[in-house]
Amino acid sequence: KVDADRLWDSLMEMAKIGPGIAGGNNRQALTDEDAEGRRLFQHWCEDAGMAMTVDQMGNMFFRHEGAEPDLDPVYVGSHLDTQPTGGKYDGVLGVLAGLEVIRSIRDLGIRTRRPIVVTNWTNEEGTRFAPAMLASGVFAGVIEQDYAYARHDAKGKTFGEELARIGWKGDETPGDRKIHAMFEYHIEQGPILEAEATQIGVVTHGQGLRWIECTVTGKGQHTGSTPMRMRRNAGRGLAQLTELVHEIAMKHQPNAVGAIGHVDVYPNSRNIIPEKVVFTVDFRSHLLPILLEMVKEFTEKAPAICADLGCEFASEIVGQFDPPAFDETLVRRVRSSAERLGYSHMDIISGAGHDACWVNKVAPTVMIMCPCVDGLSHNEAEDISREWASAGADVLLHSVLETAEI
Amino acid sequence: KVDADRLWDSLMEMAKIGPGIAGGNNRQALTDEDAEGRRLFQHWCEDAGMAMTVDQMGNMFFRHEGAEPDLDPVYVGSHLDTQPTGGKYDGVLGVLAGLEVIRSIRDLGIRTRRPIVVTNWTNEEGTRFAPAMLASGVFAGVIEQDYAYARHDAKGKTFGEELARIGWKGDETPGDRKIHAMFEYHIEQGPILEAEATQIGVVTHGQGLRWIECTVTGKGQHTGSTPMRMRRNAGRGLAQLTELVHEIAMKHQPNAVGAIGHVDVYPNSRNIIPEKVVFTVDFRSHLLPILLEMVKEFTEKAPAICADLGCEFASEIVGQFDPPAFDETLVRRVRSSAERLGYSHMDIISGAGHDACWVNKVAPTVMIMCPCVDGLSHNEAEDISREWASAGADVLLHSVLETAEI
Ligand SMILES: NC(=O)NCCC(=O)O
Ligand SMILES: NC(=O)NCCC(=O)O
Repeated sequence: KVDADRLWDSLMEMAKIGPGIAGGNNRQALTDEDAEGRRLFQHWCEDAGMAMTVDQMGNMFFRHEGAEPDLDPVYVGSHLDTQPTGGKYDGVLGVLAGLEVIRSIRDLGIRTRRPIVVTNWTNEEGTRFAPAMLASGVFAGVIEQDYAYARHDAKGKTFGEELARIGWKGDETPGDRKIHAMFEYHIEQGPILEAEATQIGVVTHGQGLRWIECTVTGKGQHTGSTPMRMRRNAGRGLAQLTELVHEIAMKHQPNAVGAIGHVDVYPNSRNIIPEKVVFTVDFRSHLLPILLEMVKEFTEKAPAICADLGCEFASEIVGQFDPPAFDETLVRRVRSSAERLGYSHMDIISGAGHDACWVNKVAPTVMIMCPCVDGLSHNEAEDISREWASAGADVLLHSVLETAEI
Repeated sequence: KVDADRLWDSLMEMAKIGPGIAGGNNRQALTDEDAEGRRLFQHWCEDAGMAMTVDQMGNMFFRHEGAEPDLDPVYVGSHLDTQPTGGKYDGVLGVLAGLEVIRSIRDLGIRTRRPIVVTNWTNEEGTRFAPAMLASGVFAGVIEQDYAYARHDAKGKTFGEELARIGWKGDETPGDRKIHAMFEYHIEQGPILEAEATQIGVVTHGQGLRWIECTVTGKGQHTGSTPMRMRRNAGRGLAQLTELVHEIAMKHQPNAVGAIGHVDVYPNSRNIIPEKVVFTVDFRSHLLPILLEMVKEFTEKAPAICADLGCEFASEIVGQFDPPAFDETLVRRVRSSAERLGYSHMDIISGAGHDACWVNKVAPTVMIMCPCVDGLSHNEAEDISREWASAGADVLLHSVLETAEI
């Protein structure tokens, strides 16, 4: 088993970097806080005898040597970046549990045949730079690096500039690595494991996702002196499309979800009818036909709804992935590790996207999940217990050791 | 008649300060651009022989002496501040037409018995610091100065701090002035005069207004892994209340209007269900019972709508005035001036709020309006013709001269 207290202490230490305003974290991708978190992680990994390589997307790889260095390594990791109002565990748990696996192996004096690589993937959250899982997407060859570099935040700063600015642009070409298998350990971010009083989620599949960035354009007019009949209120477009997204998702519920989380109103003045509203729809399902059906219904109905309001509608897909199925051999291995350790477990579908979903395109991957309180995530109040954290890390340790071959 | 070209050239010169991005202006209250616009106006007024006084709200008063300095002066003016995406004429026309009245009087060698004071009122638009007409409200004694100083912009900077920072906080106690009469000349900001092919709007009444700042609070949760049934989506509160505002206003249309122009979504991340949405409802009517009825219906229904979504609703009135009736003697004088000059004219109700509405509480006031293209205002594309501008300024000149007694 891993050292539960050491894992917990590392989580608490990392959480001091980029503190939020309500007990969580704001350590968004490519901010100064991200750079500081990376330096602390580097320090810990080097202390644990690992050697660092950074690729051109800022992905960090720490190699723990195997008895047979020529064998393809086993990867373990997740992400250190957070939401603007994020929790202390989303992503971070998987990275620091990877480090804890190495620390434990060293404590126990175990030597694996295969090397093990602990990883921090850049910009998983996708808040500052859409889409999410940008750097693992480039690594997996599904996103172009030039496209990734040109992604910009709300202030117009690009991913490429900001990566260079914080000093974490490496030399290695993304994806230029052999991977025998990859494990990602993550909090569930949903309510199921807790409700079922189950310690371990064995993740068999993930949801697919489409992010549709929409622009509704009306006319910016005076709220006081423009007659009701002359208005072209883009805010009403947002209102009706918010409800449309909800209705579409409810039709396919519980096999789908949908919401609008990001909204910018222009010019955003109390006495100007909204001229333009830009917002992003997030549709997900673990069933591809449902996902495609939802996007189709939305993009077919939205223009007519806006036209009825005298507004124009335009949209662009800014994030997408199809529902992934994780590697069956690795899924069985995670399940039997939990079994052997005596932890309660169940098969589960990941509601969120993860780096393991992209890497799944180029190597066998799997995920392990632990519960989180009230299913709450992407919120500073996100919470897990020390016991939940270490149970999953134990399963991770056993699964990784079996895969890296003792 | 006034010098139409000189008036137009001054408008174009002022429009160079704080240019917008689409041909209009962004010269919001208490910005560096506002300060620069004030300096240019000061320079022109002093060139025209007037002496400046500034009060503690930054209101600027330029006095043109009368033959009998002890008589109460006649005031003429409006505001130089603009919307973030505002036009070149909203407010500015009334200030510079006031200056043009003095320039014309000097050209013609006319001497009035009463002094004439040309005025620029601070923060009329209310975009940066709600409510609108803040400084004329303090002047008229309907808004407390301490309350005004504490109003803050979206970045938390207060009115008091910013007024001092740009160097336009004067010594005079607001309202400490005798006013014989006040004239405000303004573009209509609505479509009626143009549609009726009429040069002059004789403004008999104004609309009353209520700005209701609302906060809908739900729960910030992961958009992917939170089941539809567990959501408390504050964005849906905004959506349903946007439509409620529209329905309420449509019931009373054409005697009322209503819309939401300002919306801030928190934390505004693509994969977080909105935790909180803050927005401002703008209801108006020239009939007080209708205005009160609309506010009542909205504030009664909104909490239940939000409760159905698992959200909380809170609201606060951040701007209000009752429908004003302008001084009947001055209204008749404006009408007869237009008649005498041979300009087509009609009685009209002001859709927008104006400084003259507040000053109306402490002195006789009246407004004159000219058409604007397509009724478009609070938009960089706001437009008027040189002829429209000067016709209204001619009516202003005649009305002011009659009131200041030649
Ligand atoms: N795990 C996680 O929250 N990833 C961000 C991408 C997503 O929205 O699913
Ligand atoms: N004239 C004008 O647009 N004033 C701003 C206050 C309002 O919204 O009516």
